[in-house]
Amino acid sequence: MVRMRTRKNDMNTNKVSKTLLKRLPVYLNYIKTLPEHTESISATKIAKALDLGDVLVRKDLAKVSDGGRRKLGYVREDLIRDIEEFLDVNRTACAVIVGAGKLGQALLDYDGFEKSGLQILAGFDICPGGPRTGGGKPIFPMSRLEAYCRANDVTIGIITVPAEHAQKVCDQLVACDVEAIWNFSPVHLSVPEHVVIQSENLAVSLTALRMQMKNRG
Amino acid sequence: MVRMRTRKNDMNTNKVSKTLLKRLPVYLNYIKTLPEHTESISATKIAKALDLGDVLVRKDLAKVSDGGRRKLGYVREDLIRDIEEFLDVNRTACAVIVGAGKLGQALLDYDGFEKSGLQILAGFDICPGGPRTGGGKPIFPMSRLEAYCRANDVTIGIITVPAEHAQKVCDQLVACDVEAIWNFSPVHLSVPEHVVIQSENLAVSLTALRMQMKNRG
Repeated sequence: MVRMRTRKNDMNTNKVSKTLLKRLPVYLNYIKTLPEHTESISATKIAKALDLGDVLVRKDLAKVSDGGRRKLGYVREDLIRDIEEFLDVNRTACAVIVGAGKLGQALLDYDGFEKSGLQILAGFDICPGGPRTGGGKPIFPMSRLEAYCRANDVTIGIITVPAEHAQKVCDQLVACDVEAIWNFSPVHLSVPEHVVIQSENLAVSLTALRMQMKNRG
Repeated sequence: MVRMRTRKNDMNTNKVSKTLLKRLPVYLNYIKTLPEHTESISATKIAKALDLGDVLVRKDLAKVSDGGRRKLGYVREDLIRDIEEFLDVNRTACAVIVGAGKLGQALLDYDGFEKSGLQILAGFDICPGGPRTGGGKPIFPMSRLEAYCRANDVTIGIITVPAEHAQKVCDQLVACDVEAIWNFSPVHLSVPEHVVIQSENLAVSLTALRMQMKNRG
């Protein structure tokens, strides 16, 4: 007998709180990186591992999956699928990286992003050191950026240039009609209203880490 | 005349909320990366730039600095100093990186961490490709990890190895008595209660970025 399920992911995610959208990727990553033999997982265990409230996690998961069973928790694979469907990350987006230094090349050659639906096609640099990274990804001069982005339907621009060049590069990527900027330069960037920006600021993370150390010490 | 100031930073930061401690490094980074000619900054402007509530930012800043002036805001340099004193980041901590691949070497050679009070002394790897990074930082074999950490008062261990080796490396660093782990591997790590752990998970960030794109679209 086929059990009829209410498809929770038919819900309009626009109506979901921003904070839930921030927590879901964290849950997803935790559940995915559990030891392979793990077959089921409870909200309580997730809450404890991630230092979150039990009730909060229970409610969050109930919003994206109806697979939770009293005492048994969730079947791990089902929960991964439900969260991924809810997040709609299975559609692949194309990105380019501007700044083909060590960090840029490390990101270009990292193969873990494809699981999260991101394909980094190529790197761009003012002075391309070589035609390809060690992993075989092409590196082009900046003059080819716009034509490449338009020809390859690039929607995400990743910035790994030094701080002093970051805003200029950001403006260039916006002019190529990317929808989002993923910024690894340690500087605050301005983008037009319609462009999404997310910054990975390691100095901020580092200070947060040191504050935790101080609070423990 | 010397103005007497209540030293806000004499307050015990243990009593400060965790969420404030997460926001302060973000404020600090924003204020530091403003254009150089910026002499003063208001809570309202900070709130707007960082997409936070006006009242929240005003209250946060009042907790760490009494330099705010009606209509004028804060003198930028004073506010930077007050936040840094509050965060106590001016004391330098020593770190090592385990995993001297591209990402590990990029972090080793990045010179922006010293401003945040972190000195990355050396890298360690099972197969050190060469004796030094391009920037001149030494890379040692893993066999020297423990002696090096103890001799150099290393308190932070940075992990940039592939996911499958990360927990083992984490355990090795904990055995070297580091106080904190900064984890760049895409995997959830277990540490003893007394060790601080912070993970930079790019897959999580990426999913969050894509969710924002979807919400805008």
